[in-house]
Amino acid sequence: MAKIPVGILGATGMVGQQYIALLADHPWFEARYVAASPRSAGKKYAEAVAGRWQPTREYAPSVGGLVVEDANDVAKALAAFQRGDCAFVFSALEMGKDEIRSLEEAYAGAGIPVVSNASAHRWTSDVPMLIAEVNPQHTDIIHAQRKNRGWDRGFIAVKPNCSIQSYMTPLFALVQAGYEVKRLIVNTMQAVSGAGYPGVASLDIIDNVVPYIGGEEEKTEREPLKILGSIAGGAIQNAEEPVISAHCNRVPVVDGHTACVSLEFGAKKPSLDEVKRIWTQFRALPQELELPMAPKQPIILREEADRPQPRKDRDAGKGMAVTIGRIRPCNIFDLRFAALSHNTIRGAAGGGILNAELLKAKGFVVY
Amino acid sequence: MAKIPVGILGATGMVGQQYIALLADHPWFEARYVAASPRSAGKKYAEAVAGRWQPTREYAPSVGGLVVEDANDVAKALAAFQRGDCAFVFSALEMGKDEIRSLEEAYAGAGIPVVSNASAHRWTSDVPMLIAEVNPQHTDIIHAQRKNRGWDRGFIAVKPNCSIQSYMTPLFALVQAGYEVKRLIVNTMQAVSGAGYPGVASLDIIDNVVPYIGGEEEKTEREPLKILGSIAGGAIQNAEEPVISAHCNRVPVVDGHTACVSLEFGAKKPSLDEVKRIWTQFRALPQELELPMAPKQPIILREEADRPQPRKDRDAGKGMAVTIGRIRPCNIFDLRFAALSHNTIRGAAGGGILNAELLKAKGFVVY
Amino acid sequence: MAKIPVGILGATGMVGQQYIALLADHPWFEARYVAASPRSAGKKYAEAVAGRWQPTREYAPSVGGLVVEDANDVAKALAAFQRGDCAFVFSALEMGKDEIRSLEEAYAGAGIPVVSNASAHRWTSDVPMLIAEVNPQHTDIIHAQRKNRGWDRGFIAVKPNCSIQSYMTPLFALVQAGYEVKRLIVNTMQAVSGAGYPGVASLDIIDNVVPYIGGEEEKTEREPLKILGSIAGGAIQNAEEPVISAHCNRVPVVDGHTACVSLEFGAKKPSLDEVKRIWTQFRALPQELELPMAPKQPIILREEADRPQPRKDRDAGKGMAVTIGRIRPCNIFDLRFAALSHNTIRGAAGGGILNAELLKAKGFVVY
Amino acid sequence: MAKIPVGILGATGMVGQQYIALLADHPWFEARYVAASPRSAGKKYAEAVAGRWQPTREYAPSVGGLVVEDANDVAKALAAFQRGDCAFVFSALEMGKDEIRSLEEAYAGAGIPVVSNASAHRWTSDVPMLIAEVNPQHTDIIHAQRKNRGWDRGFIAVKPNCSIQSYMTPLFALVQAGYEVKRLIVNTMQAVSGAGYPGVASLDIIDNVVPYIGGEEEKTEREPLKILGSIAGGAIQNAEEPVISAHCNRVPVVDGHTACVSLEFGAKKPSLDEVKRIWTQFRALPQELELPMAPKQPIILREEADRPQPRKDRDAGKGMAVTIGRIRPCNIFDLRFAALSHNTIRGAAGGGILNAELLKAKGFVVY
Repeated sequence: MAKIPVGILGATGMVGQQYIALLADHPWFEARYVAASPRSAGKKYAEAVAGRWQPTREYAPSVGGLVVEDANDVAKALAAFQRGDCAFVFSALEMGKDEIRSLEEAYAGAGIPVVSNASAHRWTSDVPMLIAEVNPQHTDIIHAQRKNRGWDRGFIAVKPNCSIQSYMTPLFALVQAGYEVKRLIVNTMQAVSGAGYPGVASLDIIDNVVPYIGGEEEKTEREPLKILGSIAGGAIQNAEEPVISAHCNRVPVVDGHTACVSLEFGAKKPSLDEVKRIWTQFRALPQELELPMAPKQPIILREEADRPQPRKDRDAGKGMAVTIGRIRPCNIFDLRFAALSHNTIRGAAGGGILNAELLKAKGFVVY
Repeated sequence: MAKIPVGILGATGMVGQQYIALLADHPWFEARYVAASPRSAGKKYAEAVAGRWQPTREYAPSVGGLVVEDANDVAKALAAFQRGDCAFVFSALEMGKDEIRSLEEAYAGAGIPVVSNASAHRWTSDVPMLIAEVNPQHTDIIHAQRKNRGWDRGFIAVKPNCSIQSYMTPLFALVQAGYEVKRLIVNTMQAVSGAGYPGVASLDIIDNVVPYIGGEEEKTEREPLKILGSIAGGAIQNAEEPVISAHCNRVPVVDGHTACVSLEFGAKKPSLDEVKRIWTQFRALPQELELPMAPKQPIILREEADRPQPRKDRDAGKGMAVTIGRIRPCNIFDLRFAALSHNTIRGAAGGGILNAELLKAKGFVVY
Repeated sequence: MAKIPVGILGATGMVGQQYIALLADHPWFEARYVAASPRSAGKKYAEAVAGRWQPTREYAPSVGGLVVEDANDVAKALAAFQRGDCAFVFSALEMGKDEIRSLEEAYAGAGIPVVSNASAHRWTSDVPMLIAEVNPQHTDIIHAQRKNRGWDRGFIAVKPNCSIQSYMTPLFALVQAGYEVKRLIVNTMQAVSGAGYPGVASLDIIDNVVPYIGGEEEKTEREPLKILGSIAGGAIQNAEEPVISAHCNRVPVVDGHTACVSLEFGAKKPSLDEVKRIWTQFRALPQELELPMAPKQPIILREEADRPQPRKDRDAGKGMAVTIGRIRPCNIFDLRFAALSHNTIRGAAGGGILNAELLKAKGFVVY
Repeated sequence: MAKIPVGILGATGMVGQQYIALLADHPWFEARYVAASPRSAGKKYAEAVAGRWQPTREYAPSVGGLVVEDANDVAKALAAFQRGDCAFVFSALEMGKDEIRSLEEAYAGAGIPVVSNASAHRWTSDVPMLIAEVNPQHTDIIHAQRKNRGWDRGFIAVKPNCSIQSYMTPLFALVQAGYEVKRLIVNTMQAVSGAGYPGVASLDIIDNVVPYIGGEEEKTEREPLKILGSIAGGAIQNAEEPVISAHCNRVPVVDGHTACVSLEFGAKKPSLDEVKRIWTQFRALPQELELPMAPKQPIILREEADRPQPRKDRDAGKGMAVTIGRIRPCNIFDLRFAALSHNTIRGAAGGGILNAELLKAKGFVVY
């Protein structure tokens, strides 16, 4: 089967590079169109990333030879779309929020689906914010989105922030099993790769912890409510629970965000064994559809006293699984645990690719 | 004024070394007696710590020449006590808990006051567990302790675990100002020096976080209740509040424990400004007495968005102050903040020396 | 084809774990016999390594269920050999040198080939010290070894220290191309995993460099001379050149040893372009035989100014390739460069497995 | 005695901050004039560095209130000079080399002495490049400099690069003792603070080593020749020896540059004991004059096998001493050793202040 050609907007940035790296041997998709800032436009991709390539995995040789286009030039992308070189784009744009919002709309308006890693459209009410195992049904809002905006083929779908990935799927698994979750106090210890490149200065993080990441706590507290929301009246209506209070910290770890969670259930409270059973047995639509990026086991439980650990667990399920440990009662709420996910794979490019796979499987992306 | 001669039990271990280092230029005390395991006994101190000296500060030349005694040999210490070479001992023993408990009692029983860093006697009801700014009045229990045990001059006083030092003084300051604190969810990010030497293996912590420290959460949750307790019937009666739920993590930081705290007040709730005022203005008995190790300002507030940070703030007040930042409301409880203290200074040897200064000032240590 | 069953001595130690991890999907070999210290003997392997498993890759499920035998019990191994469960053993023993020497001889004397990672037999003159790409012809000394010792099937083959792996193959490639190398000043910056587990204390290496590794400089300076030696009179005769002077340092890196080299040629000196050509084109017997662990390209040149780097290059060629960069003239000698190899893969278990593949291909291991 | 008022150009940058921090309790000098880029000009110093202050030590309260001036505005500085608020300036300018060269000349031309940390004038033949213990006599070139340029009171004096500080004083001590040094192969392992702030990205250095620092090897190889040079014909004539070949690496260390050195003497070769004696006994003009920043013992020998180490030795002599260890013969040259100095104190602001003290003591700075 011929692979589906895809474009990457912001292809030379750190998240863009991760897309390119993860697509190098993807069974469905192939990077055939790369766009970035005007500064990189016109260069070959290999040249544009020379000395700045971050992933340990290499890019596909064919991508090295692609000419980088100007991401602002939607017409160029449309031409690629029309000649069959770009069925949809991954947006890993790094610009101001307003510019990204407009530009993603311009691509979608031109008929090119946009599967975005950017935060610009996360709070647009007719744009789904997807974690493929949690709210795959939110893709339905795309019909309303197209109708609202008069778009035929194009659409925008986004993914949430990397900081919530480690506990969002476990949280959802509990809710889905019938246990209401009322409140959550979350403490994250986040890897430096979450800040992009050059990102965190080494002088700020060697032998240190920084107890602040600009804007991160707000995202961590709000995004789960949209993800757990429901569709009504052509918009996603946010859930009202759980209330989340977050402390977000930066730690000297390359990849892998850890979260320590204290969680309060509603009246109906599962036993610890029941919690473990729910998490171990949790499977969702991506697993059922056997999507290529979907981890076979979305939530992995470690029984050792001292896991999960970022260096040892981040690559579980090829970086797409969540690893959980230290499941124990909370003295104040009901449940305590530690959770970990790979922020640049599940939390960024890998999560975006899985979303695209879901959208393809559901027929929103056609080729 | 001639300095008071002191002994250090466990003088070659990591905490013992910190005592030796901090006493190098202490205005009241002078290390004149050093004891350790039989393995080190008979060696000169300089020889016993050669290649194992951890503090960046050097030991006093006079200490290098002291012969290390066997810490199990209480008679040797008593002889030193009687000839005026050891008015009391700091216990930094590293043995089994039961052995430490017996040995500290043997010293006290022989008439030698023991100011201990060990955890063995923390839950003995007639032994005070002191933070000099928080519960200096708990030294009064020593009268009952002596009476209970038939001791005349000797006694035992201990200090709490390093993990609670960063938030215990701020917590107490609020309580003292009349604001009941009901519940606390605490997430600590603790330095490797807290585990002693060799302690944490580098393979476990470079590019990593370990979300578990054996026994630490239990200590973190229980010890504040004794410290906030009151004396009645010849014993310290534990407080019943606040209820604490802790997540203790090890991070790649050399020195300095950070805590992220969510805190719930009782019915009476201070404003953020009132909280800041209470903390900034907090002074206690050690400041009033101008004890040498007492920080002039016990609680330092940083207004920057990203402080406190271990590498930048651990040395505040010569390692004896607590630094606080990120004071903000909690979505679930009332107050959120981040707090930091130096675990091997305030949290270990420095805290022990301050306790000894308090005991000296109050007349429990005589010379 | 049925896989060849192999045993691992010292299977629960850090290098032993790496063998188990790398053998998990090896096309020729299968771990079927595991032995360790009496402390682990009798436990299932999964139980014996619980909480101590270091590799990021998991062990094969079948290995988890193997009962760990006592490595001192050669009879047990012989029984396994005779029933077809152990065609040869990898030695990753961690004991005193003399004990390892005797024990490896006992296995070989019992007829069980020993492919060793230990240093005990590196200087035994009839034991080959192999880097498969450099001195594969040294396997011939096994004939003399067997004759000297009256062994029929058994033998011992060892591999050199991890610190020389990064520059030994490049050095050999130059020699083989006809350029005599007279002198070499080498500065290594070595990863903590080279010291085993728990190995380097975190307090010794966070925010630090240790300019000393016990015994390492001596090995670094001497071992190349045996590897470049020739067989004569039933023994390996050491080469006399190059003279090496080493500075070995420990740095806060998890995996990957870096070496900075200044090198002096004899009268005939290649141009930098010639050096690059030699290294890029270098292939040896393992590549010719397409041995499973052999990297396709043994020496990889990076043209970027700032490579090789341990975190970015250690996994090149699945951890079996050497990466070189910064090729430039030396102000004093002739050539300067930086070289890197993965110390626990190429420098330990991976190198040992490649040696076993070579010995199998040459008929020394039969099954 | 009233303190001498000094100015700091580039006062908000990382080196400028170090000057401010080290001057906070300097017995001779007081920061009274601060200048930086136009972006900071007009702000109070406290405001200009808010959230960007790097040193662990705080600035003097009086400095926090100074208004930052535009460093390009020499007239402003001259006014301060004339009203007695700035007897000379420290230059920690961070601009293009040509701009710095011109600007420093403008200050000197206006009559304001410039004691510079910048590299712009290091190769100007009538500008001394001073290490106060090594070439204090080079201050004499200032007479020629003033005459060449028609300056009366102003002059420029610079200091060398931080990478050579650890071995330059030891090298000089040997030369001064009558032992010619012919050749030197140096491998540096340099701290991230050497790259300024934000400087090295954490993604480039956590769990990593970067074997390249732009321009550093050239400086390391050339600067010692000027420092060891002699004054003739109104210019400093560079020495011709030693020939130096350098490998400069960046390691995950906050502060402290380590160098591993192999050194070849001329015909006359000292014993190791003689080398140790020379280094231990070395004292120079700054010690004789008891300059405030001068370490009592400029070269400290550590006998332990594994020292010097950056975290443990960088603060020796308040960061102004060089610490040496691992003194042993070289297999190829004559002598091997490891040396360490604090790059932001001795290697930057501390070295600059010591130079100013020397210039004051010699009468070049008047007030």
